[in-house]
Formats: sequence, C-alpha cells, structure tokens
Amino acid sequence: MVQGKISEIHGWAATGPGLKVEPWSYTPRPLGDGDIEIKIEYSGICGSDLHTLKEELGPTIFPAIVGHEIVGRVITKGSKVTEFKEGDLVGVGAQVYSCLQGDCKACGHNLDPHCPKSVYTYNSKYADGQPAQGGYAEAVRVDASFAFKIPDNIDPIHAPPLMCAGVTVFAPMLRKGVKKGDRVGIVGIGGLGHLAIQYAHALGADVVAFSHSPNKRQQCLELGASKFVDTSDKSEVDAVRHTLDYLFITSNSKSSQYGEFISWMAFEGTIVLLAIPEGHMTFAPFDIISTEVSITGSMIGGIQVLKKTLEFASQNNIRPIIEKYPISQVNEALQRMNEGQARYRIVLTHEISG
Amino acid sequence: MVQGKISEIHGWAATGPGLKVEPWSYTPRPLGDGDIEIKIEYSGICGSDLHTLKEELGPTIFPAIVGHEIVGRVITKGSKVTEFKEGDLVGVGAQVYSCLQGDCKACGHNLDPHCPKSVYTYNSKYADGQPAQGGYAEAVRVDASFAFKIPDNIDPIHAPPLMCAGVTVFAPMLRKGVKKGDRVGIVGIGGLGHLAIQYAHALGADVVAFSHSPNKRQQCLELGASKFVDTSDKSEVDAVRHTLDYLFITSNSKSSQYGEFISWMAFEGTIVLLAIPEGHMTFAPFDIISTEVSITGSMIGGIQVLKKTLEFASQNNIRPIIEKYPISQVNEALQRMNEGQARYRIVLTHEISG
Repeated sequence: MVQGKISEIHGWAATGPGLKVEPWSYTPRPLGDGDIEIKIEYSGICGSDLHTLKEELGPTIFPAIVGHEIVGRVITKGSKVTEFKEGDLVGVGAQVYSCLQGDCKACGHNLDPHCPKSVYTYNSKYADGQPAQGGYAEAVRVDASFAFKIPDNIDPIHAPPLMCAGVTVFAPMLRKGVKKGDRVGIVGIGGLGHLAIQYAHALGADVVAFSHSPNKRQQCLELGASKFVDTSDKSEVDAVRHTLDYLFITSNSKSSQYGEFISWMAFEGTIVLLAIPEGHMTFAPFDIISTEVSITGSMIGGIQVLKKTLEFASQNNIRPIIEKYPISQVNEALQRMNEGQARYRIVLTHEISG
Repeated sequence: MVQGKISEIHGWAATGPGLKVEPWSYTPRPLGDGDIEIKIEYSGICGSDLHTLKEELGPTIFPAIVGHEIVGRVITKGSKVTEFKEGDLVGVGAQVYSCLQGDCKACGHNLDPHCPKSVYTYNSKYADGQPAQGGYAEAVRVDASFAFKIPDNIDPIHAPPLMCAGVTVFAPMLRKGVKKGDRVGIVGIGGLGHLAIQYAHALGADVVAFSHSPNKRQQCLELGASKFVDTSDKSEVDAVRHTLDYLFITSNSKSSQYGEFISWMAFEGTIVLLAIPEGHMTFAPFDIISTEVSITGSMIGGIQVLKKTLEFASQNNIRPIIEKYPISQVNEALQRMNEGQARYRIVLTHEISG
C-alpha cells in the first residue's frame, strides 16, 4: 500500500455547535489503492457548512472540519489510480464515496448521491467508522472517483464554487432538460443564484432574476439575465406572472411564498427547490391542480453531472464572482457569509496556511 | 340559423346549496352554426357535481343542473358542423367551449382547459352571460368541438365515466409519459382510481393499488394491479417504500399524508394530485430535496387528450364498473356517492325521464 505524504492533517475545526472554528489536526485514514491524497489550495464556503456548524440540519459529528468545495493538487495516488498523476489540479465536491456498483439502485442510474453507502465530504462516516473531514484543511484523502480534473481554462481560485454550488444549480437543469427559449426564473441572487443565471443563460434560456435587493439588478443583467424583478415591487412581479417554464429557488424563502411562486409559472411549469426553507412547505392543492405546475427539489449531483458541470463552465465561460479570504481569517469569512454579505461566494486561500 | 328541436330543456336542478335536486327547466341558448343539440341518454355522477352542489369549491350559480359526463345522440346540428350527423352517439366532458385559436397560450398548445375563454359544462357562463347547464337533463347544446364520438365497441352506458374520470386519470399519464415497466401507484380506489388502474396497466406499467379498504383487494387485482397495499397495514406499506415512479392520488387524503406519500417514491418519482384534499398541502422541504420527487396536479384534459382517452379505452377494453340509477332517483344516487358507497361510478339513465 502506498503511504500518504501528510501523516497528520492540520485544519480548522469546530469543536461544538456555533460559527467558530479553530486549529486542529487529525490522522488521516490509510490511503487505499483507489484513493488520492490532495494538497488543498482553495476551498469554498457553502451555506451547508454554516448549517452543519450551527447544527441546523441534524446532529454534527464534532470536531468537524467542514468545506466541500475543495480544489488542490494530487500529491499521492493509490496503486490502482490511473486517471490522475501527481501535480494534477483536481476538485472535490460534497461526496467522497459511493459503491458505484451497477446493481445499486442509485449508482446504477448515475444517482450516486443517493447510494445507501454514500460518504459525504464532512459530517459523515466511512464504513470503518472514521469521520470524513472536509476542506478547511491542508489536505484530504478521497476515492479518486470523486475527484475531478479542473479544466485548464478555469482559474483554480474560481473552481471551488463549481464543485457544490455549480453542480447544485446545473444538475436539475440537465435533468429537467432546460433548453433554448425556455423562460427560467431564479429566486435569490447569491452563491447559487448568480451561477444559476449563468448556467441557464448558457443553455439558451431567457432568464428572469428575482431578488428583493434592487442593487443586484445591474449585476444580474451582466451575468445573463434578460430581466430583473424586484420582488418588493408588485408591478414588476405582476408583469411576469404566469410566464415561467422553470423557477429555481436558491434562497431560504418562507414556505408561505409557494402560492406566490406558483402564480409566476406558465402551465405545467416546474419549480425546483435548491435551498431548505425553515418549517414546512405549504400551498393550496387547487393551485397545482389548476396550473399543473410541478414542485420538486434537487440535491448536489453525481459523478457524471459534476464532470458536465465543469466542462460546461469551461466551454461557456461560467465563473463565480468571489471574495478571497486567507484561511487564517476563516472565522471572519464565516461571519460574513452568515450575514449574507458575501458577493457572491467566499473562497478560502490555503497557500499561506502551510 | 338552424333551430334546435327542444325549446325547453327539462332537467334536475339544485336551487340552493345542498345535495338536493328537483325538476326544473330552462330555455336553451340559440343553436350556433358550430353547435350541436344532444338528446342525453346517460350521465355520470362525478365528485365535482357534489362539490358544486354543496358549494365547496366557491360560489355556485343557482339554479344549477350539474353533470359533466354526458352521453347521448346528436338530434340537431348547426350549419357548419361537418364531423357529426344526426343519430351519432357522442360524449361531452367537463368543458363545452374554448377559443381554439392558435395564438391562444392555452389552446395553441392543446391546453384548452386553461383557455381564458373556457366555458365549463356547468356552473360557468357563456360570453353572453347565459349559464351553462349540465347533464342531469334531457338535452344539452354545445360547441361540436367539445363533443366526441363514442367508439362503437364501448357500450354507451359505460362511456360517461370516461368523459371526466377517464380523461382526468389518463391525461397526466400521457403528459408524464407513463410507459411499460414503470411502477405506478394509485391511491384511492373509487371512480377515478379503478379507471387509473386500468389505464396504467394498459400502458404496460406495474400497478400498485393503495386503499384502506382491504375488501377492494381482489377487485384491484382483477382490474390489472399487480399488487394491493392495505394502507392500514404498516408491513404492506413498508414493503413498497421507495419503489414508485409515479403515484396518482385520487382520494381526498389529508394534506398531512404527503410526507408519507413521498416515502413511497423512488428517486425522481412523480406524485400527481387528482383530487382536492381539504386544507393546504404541507411537507418538509428536505423530503423533496433528498428524494428529488416532484409533486404536481392535473385537471381534466383537452380535446386531443379526450379523443385519445376514448380510443385507448376502446383498444384496451378499459371499462368503468358502474351502478345504474334512473334519473328519477338522482337524489338517492347523489346520497350514495356522498357516502362513498358507489362501486365505483354511478351512471344515471335518462331513457325513462323523457
């Protein structure tokens, strides 16, 4: 068995619930034959990181190193890894293991994130009981099937947000077949929303951006939206009612807004939930019967979809707008994300964290 | 202009809210060039008739003759009607008019029921202000585009339930593309459900019937279900969890059951609501994000879909199971429907009502 190069991985971990991380280290699992060891250069901050640190989505395994938008260089590879060589720039998203067996009802249909044996990048355990630790660290070891070459024309610092936010918005567009001429609404212009505008626009859709922050209007138009709707302005909202083929909800809107969202949709339109609003969703049954609108959700994307997400970004010049923070200032960065101030995604730079 | 043959249409009308109808007559609108006059032989009782009589879905225009599963003979046709001749056996469903213009955002896409100019078969008004009156009557005059030849091999008494219940269950199967090998659940084995089993089975689907009435088990299997699940038996329900590609809800289940329904679905499965439960639908957003299940609804079907509904029933020997009541006993029949006793649809026979 090949030995990894970093025998103790230093990172920034939370030791209990709350938005505070501090230096901590762990002994990584042995490097399996199909695994690679990655020296991390950049990691993005995702809303899920904050939910996990605050224990908002169930219990968190502490100490917890979060971060599942990881970009770095392969420094060691297991004996059976053929698709990478040392020095390759790769990304890792929210999943680091699934069985990948053809007879798995998830993996056999390219639905790897639903595999019962899934291990997610953090707050998840390998079959041997060891907790997976994420990207706010100097290194990570993962199954090579869950690492992806970053296309040459993407600046490495722009790659992390594609690994989770990017695939999260693009996966349902691929699955639902968003195409040229479709009218696509994006609710919430943040880390996910500003990428969703770009992906939908590159697919040829006519994109309408919805936000209660009119100061984002110009930016949305520059990113490819053909229209910006200030949701606090009733006349702007009324002008787009009954017109959308798709609506991607990227903000944690109140559940009570679903009746309103349905009223924006064309017949047989599709609403896709990408964020997790507090409380239960609620709407009048007659609203979906009379409009034949569908309401669905989507969660990250499998291996094939992640590959397409990176390729499509490479081919269509889709790039996140980011703020950079050295990882030594990760606590300040988490606070800024938590306050909704980031425009639009924060990437931690690891160069100086050794 | 051609004159109609029946200058005063006698029927059974409600004069106010409640499940009571009584003899009443109205002067029909003039027979337009594109209209036909139909002498009604049979009319089915639909759940919507009861909702309308009880004013459960908004205000009702009284006096109201309900009934939108109409089968009868053409006795007069307008000068521009070419598709029918006198004596033809035709059916009429829940809609009697839409603009049918190519530039209509509904009619132009075969979504006639959504046309802003729609007139429904009852509790609806024509552009000239005259209320449309339904099938619990000796005759009706409608736009010939909304009448459909009954295929020769369908016994006329079996045709009424296809005009609303049939098209209501088949329309979303066509729209969603239910196909051979799909696993299709049907919740609620009544007027809609017993037809849904047959349509899904004839499409080649593997059909699972769900009911809290285990005495319907044998019947469901005979209609084409491969499995019957008694929803009051946890072990039977557990055995089908996470297996359904589609679930058609034909009963007015409590809104609180939607989390349970989602748990029956395979990844990316589709739940289609065909009945209108009381109150609001409510479910946990994470349930649809983690499963990628879609929730949608469906309402009747347009002209093209109604034609396919009849053709497909003709070709695949799909027939409702009915109870016959002479129209003179319409009040008893309404009570029986209201108590959920009908197996599975009631058809009123008009022969003796002159």
